[in-house]
Amino acid sequence: MRRAILASPNSQPLLPKLANIVGAKHVITDPDVMAPHLSEWRKLYTGKAQALVRPSSTAEVSAILRLAHETDTPVVPQSGNTGGVGGQIPDQSGRAILLSLARMDRVRDVQPLSNMMTVEAGVILQNVQAEAEKADRFFPMSLPSEGSCMIGGNLATNAGGTGVIAFGNTRDLVLGIEVVLPDGRIWNGLSGLRKDNAGYEMKHLFIGSEGTLGVITAATLKLFPRPRSRVTGFIGLASPEHALKLLARAQGGSGGTVTTFELLPRLGIDMALKNGAGVRDPLAGKHDWYVLLEVSSQDADGLQDKVEMMLTGAFEAEEAEDAVLASSLDQRMNLWKIREDLPFAQATEGASIKHDISVPIASVPAFMAEALAMLAEKFPGCRPCPFGHLGDGNLHFNVTQPVGADGQAFLALYDEMNAAVFDIVARYGGSIAAEHGVGQHKRKLLPRYKDPVALDLMLTLKKAIDPRGIMNPGKVL
Amino acid sequence: MRRAILASPNSQPLLPKLANIVGAKHVITDPDVMAPHLSEWRKLYTGKAQALVRPSSTAEVSAILRLAHETDTPVVPQSGNTGGVGGQIPDQSGRAILLSLARMDRVRDVQPLSNMMTVEAGVILQNVQAEAEKADRFFPMSLPSEGSCMIGGNLATNAGGTGVIAFGNTRDLVLGIEVVLPDGRIWNGLSGLRKDNAGYEMKHLFIGSEGTLGVITAATLKLFPRPRSRVTGFIGLASPEHALKLLARAQGGSGGTVTTFELLPRLGIDMALKNGAGVRDPLAGKHDWYVLLEVSSQDADGLQDKVEMMLTGAFEAEEAEDAVLASSLDQRMNLWKIREDLPFAQATEGASIKHDISVPIASVPAFMAEALAMLAEKFPGCRPCPFGHLGDGNLHFNVTQPVGADGQAFLALYDEMNAAVFDIVARYGGSIAAEHGVGQHKRKLLPRYKDPVALDLMLTLKKAIDPRGIMNPGKVL
Repeated sequence: MRRAILASPNSQPLLPKLANIVGAKHVITDPDVMAPHLSEWRKLYTGKAQALVRPSSTAEVSAILRLAHETDTPVVPQSGNTGGVGGQIPDQSGRAILLSLARMDRVRDVQPLSNMMTVEAGVILQNVQAEAEKADRFFPMSLPSEGSCMIGGNLATNAGGTGVIAFGNTRDLVLGIEVVLPDGRIWNGLSGLRKDNAGYEMKHLFIGSEGTLGVITAATLKLFPRPRSRVTGFIGLASPEHALKLLARAQGGSGGTVTTFELLPRLGIDMALKNGAGVRDPLAGKHDWYVLLEVSSQDADGLQDKVEMMLTGAFEAEEAEDAVLASSLDQRMNLWKIREDLPFAQATEGASIKHDISVPIASVPAFMAEALAMLAEKFPGCRPCPFGHLGDGNLHFNVTQPVGADGQAFLALYDEMNAAVFDIVARYGGSIAAEHGVGQHKRKLLPRYKDPVALDLMLTLKKAIDPRGIMNPGKVL
Repeated sequence: MRRAILASPNSQPLLPKLANIVGAKHVITDPDVMAPHLSEWRKLYTGKAQALVRPSSTAEVSAILRLAHETDTPVVPQSGNTGGVGGQIPDQSGRAILLSLARMDRVRDVQPLSNMMTVEAGVILQNVQAEAEKADRFFPMSLPSEGSCMIGGNLATNAGGTGVIAFGNTRDLVLGIEVVLPDGRIWNGLSGLRKDNAGYEMKHLFIGSEGTLGVITAATLKLFPRPRSRVTGFIGLASPEHALKLLARAQGGSGGTVTTFELLPRLGIDMALKNGAGVRDPLAGKHDWYVLLEVSSQDADGLQDKVEMMLTGAFEAEEAEDAVLASSLDQRMNLWKIREDLPFAQATEGASIKHDISVPIASVPAFMAEALAMLAEKFPGCRPCPFGHLGDGNLHFNVTQPVGADGQAFLALYDEMNAAVFDIVARYGGSIAAEHGVGQHKRKLLPRYKDPVALDLMLTLKKAIDPRGIMNPGKVL
C-alpha cells in the first residue's frame, strides 16, 4: 500500500509521505530534538533540515530514498554524529532530510566459525566489539569515540584508529555491505565470502564515500581470533627517525604482531601531565619523543620476554633511550591515557590548528623536519604537537597557539597554515585527509591536491550513481 | 609530433599509427608470433586480432588507448597469458588489438622502510617476490603459475593463491595503481599511503575488472617482514567438518599465523601417488581427508613445539587422526608437491569438469555433503576430487570422469553439472567465480547468479568509464 502512494508523486507535502513510511513519531521537526543532530561536537558546522527521519529497516530506507529521488530532495545520512569534518551535517538551505540510522541497531548474525558477523548501520562500535568478544572473537577497530560512534558512520568514512597498523582501515574489515542506492533500489552486497571474483568489486566505492553515493544500511564484518597475550610499552627516544627504526625492529621480531605504534612529542606529555587527571610520567627522565607500543600474540606465554629482548637490541643500537613495559592493567591504562587524552589536553592549552595528514611511512622524519622548520619560520611562537599513527604514516600534525597569544587571532591563520603544511604533504606524495575524511571541511581543498584525472573520475562515478545529486550534497565533491 | 597525428583521426589504416607510437617492430602481425598469444594453455579459447602491440611505457599505452578510443577499436590487454577463463583472449572478429604489457617490466622503486615497492604490469610474479626478498622483505602472493604470470594480470583478475588466508587476495596487497583509462587519460593512483580518505577509493573497481575498465600499467605493492620460522605439516582427518575445527584451533593458538590451510581428499593423494613423479604418501595409514598446514612466525624459535602442542590438542579432541611435520626442506617440498601437482595428477585420470567456487567457511562441510550427494545421484560413477583453500572457503570442486568412460561424453555434461553445482553454491550464499574470474567462461552465467541490482550497477559503471565499450569486450559483462 505504501508503494502505491509513493509510486505517483504529486504536490502533496513530503512529511506526511515520510510519516507513511516510518510512522509519524519518527519524522521529527521539533527544533529541540533536532538541534543535537544539526551540529557536531566541535561546533564548527551547523545546518538545517526539513525533518529528522528515523527508519528502522532497510525497506524503510529504500522507500525514503525512492521518495527523495522522485521529489529531488537532498538526503543527509547520519549515525553517531561523531565525525570531525561536517560530513554528517546538512547545509543551511533547510531542503534536506536528515536520515538517522540510529534505530537500525540490530546484530543480524554472528558466525564465529566463519569469523564474521552482520550488523546494521546503527550499531555502536563498542557493541560490535562486545558482540565479537561474546563469541570469543576480536573486532579490531578502535577509536576514542567508540562508545558513541556507529558502524554505519565508520563505514561511510572508512574510519581509521589505533589498530590500523595490524588490521587495516575500516574497509579492510568488511566482507560485504548492503546499500540503498540513490533511487531507492537495494543492493544486497552482504557476503560471507573471503574470495569472490564474480564481477566488479564495488563495496569499496561506497565505503569512504561519506554518504554521497548511497546509504550503507548493514555490513558483514570480519572477525579475528582474540589475542592470547599483549604487551604495552612506552619508549623514550631521540627523534621520529629513531622511532621509525624501532618500528622496523619491532615488526621484524618482537615475538608478536605490532598492533599499536603511536608517536608523541615531549610537549604532548607535558600537556597531558598538566591537564590530564591522574596522568603520571611513565619514564624517569625526559626525552624528545615517545612511542606507545603494543604487541599482541596468539601465544599465551613468553611475549613480555621477547619484547624486552627486542628493546634490549634497540638500546644497543641506540635507537631507544629508555622504556617501560606495563606490568599491570592500571599501568597499561595510564600509558594509553596519555595518548588518548592528548587531543583534550591540547585543547586546554588554547586554540589549535589541525592537520590530519599521511605520508609514506619512511618519509615521516623528513616531512616532519621540513614542516617544523616552516612553522618556526612563518608562524613564530606557535607550538607544534604532532602525534599519532606513525605505523600508518598518519600524523595529527596539530599546532597549538603561542603561549599567551589571542586564540581567535591564531585561528585566523587556519587557511594560511593549512596551505603551507599541505603543500609540504603534497611534495611527499601524502594525503591531506588521511583518516577523518573530506566532508565540508576539506571539500574546497580537494581540487588543489587530488590528481585531476582522479577527481574527474570521481565526478563521473557520482553522476552515474546519483544522477540527481540528492545524496549528501556539498560534501566531498 | 605523435599527438598531432593522433589528434585528427582519418581513414588512414590503424597499424601505421600504432607503429608511430611503439615502433614498427612492436606492432606484430606475423601469425606465428601472434599464435601463442591468441590461445591459452587449456586450449579452450582462441581468438583473432589485427595486431599484437607491445608498448614499453605508460605514455605509449596512453597513446594507444587514445587512438583506439578515437577509432572505436577494441583493446584486449594481456600480460602472462596464464588465465583460465579466457579473459586475455580476443574474440573471433579480428577487430581487436591485443595489447601486451610484457615489455613494461621495470621495478620502479623498492622502499623497505615504508614496506612497499612500485612495479610495472609486465613484471613476472616470481620477480616481484625476488625483489622483495633482496630488500629483506616478503611479498606473500603465491600461485602455481608464478614463474610466468605477470603482476598486471594478477591485478586485473584479483588473483588468489595459497597465501590468501593470512594476507588476503591481490587487491589486499595493493597501495595504489596507475591506470590508463579507455580514452587514454592516465590516472596516477600510485600511492605509498596506508591511510588516505581524500575522496573515493577507486582502485578496487579496476582491480579484478579483468581489463574491462582500463589498463593497469603499474602498482605500488605492500611488503611484509620476512617470516623468521615456518612449520609445514600434513594432517589426516575424518571429514571437512573436522578440518574446519582444526582450522579454528590452529588460528586460535599455534604460536604463529596460519599462512596455508589446504584441504585434499584421499582420492587426490591416490592420484598424486599414481601420477606424480617421486611423490611419497606422507602418512602411514589412509585417511578420508587431509590438510596441508603451514604456520609462520616472526619468532625464530619454538614454533615447531607449539604446532606440535596444538596438534596434540587436536588428537585429544579427536579432530585429527594423524599428522606429520616436515623436518627438512625435502620433506616440506614433498608435502607441497602433493598439493601443487594435484591439478595435473587429476588431468592424467581423464576429463574433468571444474568449479572454482567459494562459500562462507563454516558452510563448507554442509555444501560439500549436499554437492557430493547430488553428484552421486545425478552423475553416477563420476569421481569428485574437491580440494583447495579451505581457509578461504574456496574449493576447486573438480569432478573427474568415471573410470573407463568416454572423456568427450563426460565433458558433454559440463553445463548440466555446472548448473547443478552452482545452484547449490548459490543456496549457500557462495560465488561461482571465487578466484579465477569470469572472463568468457562464466560471462553468460553471471546474470543467473549475481544480485540483479549489483549487475545493473556494474553495467552503469562500465558505461560511465568506457562509454564506447572498447575495453576487452565480451568479457565479464
